[in-house]
Formats: sequence, C-alpha cells, structure tokens
Amino acid sequence: MALNFSNCASVLITGASRGLGLQMIKQLVRSAERPGKIIATARNPAAAQELRQIAESHTGIHVIPLDVVNEASIDTAVKEVATIVGAGGLNCLINNAAIHINSDLNSVTRDAMMKTFESNTVAPLFVTKAFLPLLKTAAVAGEGGGMGIHKSAVVNISSSLGSIQLNWGEGAFFKSYAYRASKSGLNMVTRCLATDLESDGILCTVLHPGWVRTDMGGPDAPLSAEESISSLLSIISGLTDKDHGEFLDYTGKKIPW
Amino acid sequence: MALNFSNCASVLITGASRGLGLQMIKQLVRSAERPGKIIATARNPAAAQELRQIAESHTGIHVIPLDVVNEASIDTAVKEVATIVGAGGLNCLINNAAIHINSDLNSVTRDAMMKTFESNTVAPLFVTKAFLPLLKTAAVAGEGGGMGIHKSAVVNISSSLGSIQLNWGEGAFFKSYAYRASKSGLNMVTRCLATDLESDGILCTVLHPGWVRTDMGGPDAPLSAEESISSLLSIISGLTDKDHGEFLDYTGKKIPW
Repeated sequence: MALNFSNCASVLITGASRGLGLQMIKQLVRSAERPGKIIATARNPAAAQELRQIAESHTGIHVIPLDVVNEASIDTAVKEVATIVGAGGLNCLINNAAIHINSDLNSVTRDAMMKTFESNTVAPLFVTKAFLPLLKTAAVAGEGGGMGIHKSAVVNISSSLGSIQLNWGEGAFFKSYAYRASKSGLNMVTRCLATDLESDGILCTVLHPGWVRTDMGGPDAPLSAEESISSLLSIISGLTDKDHGEFLDYTGKKIPW
Repeated sequence: MALNFSNCASVLITGASRGLGLQMIKQLVRSAERPGKIIATARNPAAAQELRQIAESHTGIHVIPLDVVNEASIDTAVKEVATIVGAGGLNCLINNAAIHINSDLNSVTRDAMMKTFESNTVAPLFVTKAFLPLLKTAAVAGEGGGMGIHKSAVVNISSSLGSIQLNWGEGAFFKSYAYRASKSGLNMVTRCLATDLESDGILCTVLHPGWVRTDMGGPDAPLSAEESISSLLSIISGLTDKDHGEFLDYTGKKIPW
C-alpha cells in the first residue's frame, strides 16, 4: 500500500523542520498522489534551511512559523492557514512536534516533566482546538462518505513508549518518566478528542512511527526515517471510521494503551 | 475481608485533611488492626480541624505539613518522618493528594492542564523519590517474605477516569481533559516506578477508589466515602507481588490501562 493523499486538499504538519516531520514533507512533495496544499510549520522557519529549500523548489507548499506552546503564535498561524486553505478548510492536521528530555529515575526533574507535558500533551490539544473551525469546515466540505483525510482528520504522533501496558519486562528497557508520561497523556487527550469530535465527523487517532534513527531516536534505532514515514503516510492516507480513537503503529497494528 | 495493617509499622497518607484521605485516617485510627504509626499530611494542618481533632484524641498519629508541589516542603517532611519512623523506615506511602479542575473541550485551559499534571502526576513521583531512602529501609527491615505493606509499598490513588481504554462510549460521559490526562500520566509514572523499584522490593500500584460522594465526586456518586475506603484499605493491606505494577479498583478488580 502506498501513500495516497490525492483526495486530501490540505495537510498541516507541525515540527516539520527536522526528523520525522521533515521526512513527511519530503515524501509528500515528491509523491504523484500528493495533497493539494502542504503546510509545514516550524518554531523558527528562518533556521529550517532544508525545509525552506524544499519549499522553494516545489509548488503548493507553505512554510509558516508556529510555536506550539505559544497561544499568540497559534492564533497567527490559524489566520495564515485560513487564507491558504480557503473555503475547503483544513483536511488533515498532523501534530508531530514533540520534545524529549532524558529523565530516568535519578535524572528526572520537575521541570523536565512539566516542559515535556506542555510540548507533547498540552500543545497538541490547543493546536487542535485552535484549528477546529477549519477542521469542521473541511469535514463538511470534503467529498465522499465516512471519516478520513478526504474529510477531516487529527493525527497525533505518539509513541509505543506511551503504552502503559507495554512498559513492563523487556518493554521497560527505555527509561524516561517525562517522555512516557507525556505520551500516555497525549493518548488520553486524543481519546477525549475522538469522543468529542465524532459528531463533527472529525477522525482522531494516535500513531506510533516506530523506533527511528532521528536525533530523538538515536543511531541504534532499527528503522530509517524513510521506512517509517513511507509506511506511516500510507496508514494515514487509509484511515477510516474503524481507526477513530485508536492507537496504531506505522504498520497499522493496534497498540494496547 | 477487613483491613489489617497490624503487620505494617508505619503508613503515610498525603492529602489527609478531607475527602478520601481523611476517611482513610478515620478508619485506620479506629481499627483494632491499625498500623503502629499513622502519618497524616496536609498542605495546611492549621486549617485541617477535623484531622487535628482525630490526632488529639488518638495515639500514634502524627499530622505534619506537606505541600506536594513544593520541594522544600517535601524535604522538611521527609526529615520529620525519618524521626517518627526511626530504624524501621516507612512501610506504606499512599499518594492520595490530588486536585480536580473542570475542563471539558470548551473550558479546558493550558493552566488547568499544567496545574493538574503538576499536582496529580509530577507530585506523587517526587514525593516517592524523596521518601525512597525510608521506603528502602523498610523493605529491608520489614519481616516476612514477598512484597507488601509489611515490607514497603507505594500506593498511588488514581481513578478509572485515567483509563484510556474505558474512555469510550458510556465510559466517556465524564469530560475532563486535565484530570483524565493527569491520571493516565500517574498510571504511567507508577508503572515506571514499579519496574525501577522492583529490585528494591518496593511494591508499587495504582488504585481506583470508585466514584465517591466527596467534594470532588459530587453528591450523585454511588459510593459513600466509608464504603469506598473500607474496601480500599482492605485491598491495600492485602497487596502482594501479583499486584505489583497493576491498576486495581477498590474491590481488587483489574482495570485496563
């Protein structure tokens, strides 16, 4: 199964200056089945050289500043995106921006817990809330039945490290109180959003991209960013009602909470 | 099954000035099978009139100030508790203090998310970390085999509202982004603690007290504080290795994450 965003007029990806977010942009812009409008956000676009180069050499890609923990920055971004997407609204919001701070039992600090929760759990909630008018517009304007990226979808990038069930035995080898708690929190927030936005026809789901060789995942990870995102974008483009409120990995397999 | 803390030399309960924490104190002091030393903490003991009255009319109960989100307050409390428990260490730490702020999709604020996470998720982690030397002492000093309150146990009071799995269909009727995410985070933190403290022989678990008629639970809740805590204390006194890292309700039934 290959990615197919041809029925998705607009997609927005946060944290697109590097890592998995940048890789999503790369694969979307070069796909024959790409979305009409690709909006890449970064805290500081001026420093996102590779992203800006991609934007300069492709059409239909917009790079805009967005600091997901700053309400004023979100408000400005929403206005800009509203102009870009027009009457069709925003079809697919991918909350990808996240931070990781080393925090095992000895090294964890209150500040690490709070900062990580703010970026990884609270920010996706308030970014989603801010874009709700555009997402609701797309849910009505999008053609076809059922839920999915042809109508309106919120995709939160979580991690299997956020699975409480899997954090046991061998699954507990990676120690990070701050990151793990923030992703469990994100999973809960997404589940709340799924129940609240179902009547608006907005699909909400959390995805695990796999353990990937990025700045965050480190050099020992088994997956390349290309492999992870190729598979993840296919899963996103194929999301349907049955995936609403679920926690899936990059191959589409359900992960226990 | 009745509560039996006769093999538990010392127990500490946070947030003991009212609600479920106060009820725990009430039932423990009047039990024939009570723990030797009962330590009740409150942010402001001077204002905790009922708790102080109980302490004045019973022996072996110590009321000390503890603001769980204040590192200096925790450090002072640990020193005081070390003097109270002596060479036996602290056998049972019950992280009960928690807050609730109304936060449905419309009313939720960043501040509500952050404050609730700080009190309900981060505080239990750092209170536990601060008491670790005393808990480790008790794990060695306590008599008998296996894990439990006769040796050393950390009991975190969570809620079934923290279950991501159960937050669906009818289970999603109670809307609170802040409270739900904080309790999912607490569940994850407890699971992390369970894996990290197993080699020290410290049992870690999360419990759901039921939906109780307290200030937090409201007047429509099906359980009285007496019923909930009578059952919950029995479960705590009977905790064994098989409950380590688990999420149980007040009847001892496992709750899905």
